[in-house]
Amino acid sequence: MSKKIPHRLYLTEDQMPKQWYNLRADMKEQPAPLLNPGTHEPAKVEELYPVFCEKLAQQEMDGTTRYIDIPEEVQDFYKMYRPSPLIRAYNLEKALGTPAKIYYKFEGNNTSGSHKLNSAVAQAYYAKEQGLAGLTTETGAGQWGTALSEACSYYNLPLTVYMVKVSYEQKPFRQSVMRTFDADIIPSPSNTTEVGRMILSKDPATGGSLGCAISEAVEKAVTTPNTRYVLGSVLNQVLLHQSIIGLESKLAMEMLDEYPDIVIGCAGGGSNLGGLIAPFMQDKLSGKANPRIIAVEPASCPSFTRGKYAYDFCDTGKVTPLAKMYTLGSSFMPSANHAGGLRYHGMSPILSKLYHDRYMEAIAVEQTKVFEAAVFFAKQETILPAPESAHAIRGAIDEALRCKETGEAKTILFGLTGTGYFDMTAYNAYLNGTMSDYIPTDADLQKGFDEMPVVKEA
Amino acid sequence: MSKKIPHRLYLTEDQMPKQWYNLRADMKEQPAPLLNPGTHEPAKVEELYPVFCEKLAQQEMDGTTRYIDIPEEVQDFYKMYRPSPLIRAYNLEKALGTPAKIYYKFEGNNTSGSHKLNSAVAQAYYAKEQGLAGLTTETGAGQWGTALSEACSYYNLPLTVYMVKVSYEQKPFRQSVMRTFDADIIPSPSNTTEVGRMILSKDPATGGSLGCAISEAVEKAVTTPNTRYVLGSVLNQVLLHQSIIGLESKLAMEMLDEYPDIVIGCAGGGSNLGGLIAPFMQDKLSGKANPRIIAVEPASCPSFTRGKYAYDFCDTGKVTPLAKMYTLGSSFMPSANHAGGLRYHGMSPILSKLYHDRYMEAIAVEQTKVFEAAVFFAKQETILPAPESAHAIRGAIDEALRCKETGEAKTILFGLTGTGYFDMTAYNAYLNGTMSDYIPTDADLQKGFDEMPVVKEA
Repeated sequence: MSKKIPHRLYLTEDQMPKQWYNLRADMKEQPAPLLNPGTHEPAKVEELYPVFCEKLAQQEMDGTTRYIDIPEEVQDFYKMYRPSPLIRAYNLEKALGTPAKIYYKFEGNNTSGSHKLNSAVAQAYYAKEQGLAGLTTETGAGQWGTALSEACSYYNLPLTVYMVKVSYEQKPFRQSVMRTFDADIIPSPSNTTEVGRMILSKDPATGGSLGCAISEAVEKAVTTPNTRYVLGSVLNQVLLHQSIIGLESKLAMEMLDEYPDIVIGCAGGGSNLGGLIAPFMQDKLSGKANPRIIAVEPASCPSFTRGKYAYDFCDTGKVTPLAKMYTLGSSFMPSANHAGGLRYHGMSPILSKLYHDRYMEAIAVEQTKVFEAAVFFAKQETILPAPESAHAIRGAIDEALRCKETGEAKTILFGLTGTGYFDMTAYNAYLNGTMSDYIPTDADLQKGFDEMPVVKEA
Repeated sequence: MSKKIPHRLYLTEDQMPKQWYNLRADMKEQPAPLLNPGTHEPAKVEELYPVFCEKLAQQEMDGTTRYIDIPEEVQDFYKMYRPSPLIRAYNLEKALGTPAKIYYKFEGNNTSGSHKLNSAVAQAYYAKEQGLAGLTTETGAGQWGTALSEACSYYNLPLTVYMVKVSYEQKPFRQSVMRTFDADIIPSPSNTTEVGRMILSKDPATGGSLGCAISEAVEKAVTTPNTRYVLGSVLNQVLLHQSIIGLESKLAMEMLDEYPDIVIGCAGGGSNLGGLIAPFMQDKLSGKANPRIIAVEPASCPSFTRGKYAYDFCDTGKVTPLAKMYTLGSSFMPSANHAGGLRYHGMSPILSKLYHDRYMEAIAVEQTKVFEAAVFFAKQETILPAPESAHAIRGAIDEALRCKETGEAKTILFGLTGTGYFDMTAYNAYLNGTMSDYIPTDADLQKGFDEMPVVKEA
């Protein structure tokens, strides 16, 4: 007999993970190393120290330590808003008429409104520990900037956030929240950096991109005494911290005698997806289980499904190390009509490697279909999802509908990364019927590919 | 030895209350009955049926049934977002340097962003059960309208929301959320009702008030076939539904071997306060315990602390029954610079009676002090509170600071009713230093008192 499954399962404080899980330790082949952009030689950890916190640079390079202790101070912070619930989507299942069992891990129950806080607090903690005077970062839709503002405020660390200009203008209240937590917010591109001035001189009307904002934040960090740059996605260290999502999900499912047949996450830079799937991918790599793992990305910024797996810059200004990843080229700018986040040109090197080696799948979905899923979900489950998260909802609904056709009672787990309270402009556009889809042409993408660096791999 | 107290305690689904608690059953004297506005005779339950759902009208009049079963369908809905956590404010305590132990019951972890959903779902359920064609209501800051929109959408019940015009304009995104859940939103006063047209003809530039919006919603309900009016606060039925807050809080504290010396809630119409304190007031009435119970209201709308305890209309248009309560007069309009909710002219008749009989205390606080507490709390506890909720935070911080002076390690419980994501205009005003306080003069209040009805009590 199966256990009675509650709507929401919260682990107790004692059950919360005390270590992060480092997926690289179990990969058959390591993701390709970062390269020095000048020499194209693998970057040494010391080369990262001018940009990153030392402890974070070490985590970035560590492909072998399977479990890494979560510092007690970070655990204490986690206890303020975690564990996050694993929710059985009874009402969604019923509304879809599917035999599938749908679970979601909801990371939106904290003021940053998303999973981003999981890595933000770790990064702010290590920065404080190193005695830094401040941090810089970029933010797109604003989830990461908000999370880092909260974490930095907690540790009394001054923070400068370069916010992609189009989001800055679409989401005025995001700025207010970050200001409440004392962050300094600059719309990017700006004239506060050389790279910003250069980008503006080429295209004064640009709405910016994550790639631009990263360049500015990095420049600001390396030109300000005792200041470092932090990033909310893409990097190995971020996936490490976000593994808490997957670890909690797996433990909660075990308590219910459940195991997912399909794990679904939205994919921008890969922070949530990489964290959610980590322990399930571990099982897959070891042969212990064989769940399907599906990334859902926007059709307007399709790095997995239409990008190239190649070395590229992580930023538009071409100041960062080169990473091998699925990329649309660092000059790629998503259409201004693309709502929400998931607008990064590249993808986590770890996930890129796993996708390349066929351990996971990826699909791209159009935004009107995403918002259709978001509104349907909200009405059934009473949570208004972030547009980013709604990509995963779209994927989960489509899989559940396939189960309806085939009659299979599959167990689906998806990551509901956050809430959409600051995305109402986009919801309005959808409700008013003025939202449109945009799919870049092959010619559009070729421009980005043409600007990618030529790297001879060993 | 004291138990190890976790940061957050969630009850399990099995531990969730299956009955609401009706505080009236334990009151030494009942609150004064509603009066027919024409005859000044006590209203009979049948007189309420044209306006309210029958089941809700019966709950309104029921002063004797101590526990009332929560319908299973409502329990199922509750399980989508409840139980809400009881949180130990370790960081706030540390930042204040107080020996006090501070707990808060956080009701903001649902998309409506507040405790209002607890009564909204009950009211929508009974409306559906009665086979109604639709509902009308009013909303001030928007929490109630959002909650009811969610509940009505779930039960496929059409909903018209009259939203106080000043809030409608200050909070554009609140409307969008309600529209996502299919509600029809009308800024009040409007020309869709006779009473709205009358109010507009007297003062075309008015920002509206809850009293106006109630009049319009009631008129709309009674002039639309098979439609009824529902209200998110003040009424006995609402306090009944909200008792789940207090019941969960008390059970969670018992599990921690704790009992509050002081219980603090914000007070507008009394929905959260009445729900939170219910089981503690039960202990106080029976002599089992003697916690201090403190209502915190805005200095700009001070019904407890400066109002009269008298019969008054519940609305500006004077169409509702008369309720005996602490009131500023149904024509009272809070200053336009008053941010957030808690802008009702009256107060729950139950709480009014208990306050009059000295079972509880009340204080009024100025809004800049409230926002100061809100920002301080957000930085320590990572939750951005609603302005309404921040009144309770202000009260709790002040009590904790008194403990610091006296060295007493009191146990404080307060209600954190919701989140402030839709209140960023007000946060901006505070952060920019443009927020001001407004305290009505005695002459200002006298105008409201002069318009109150003259009622001879038996």
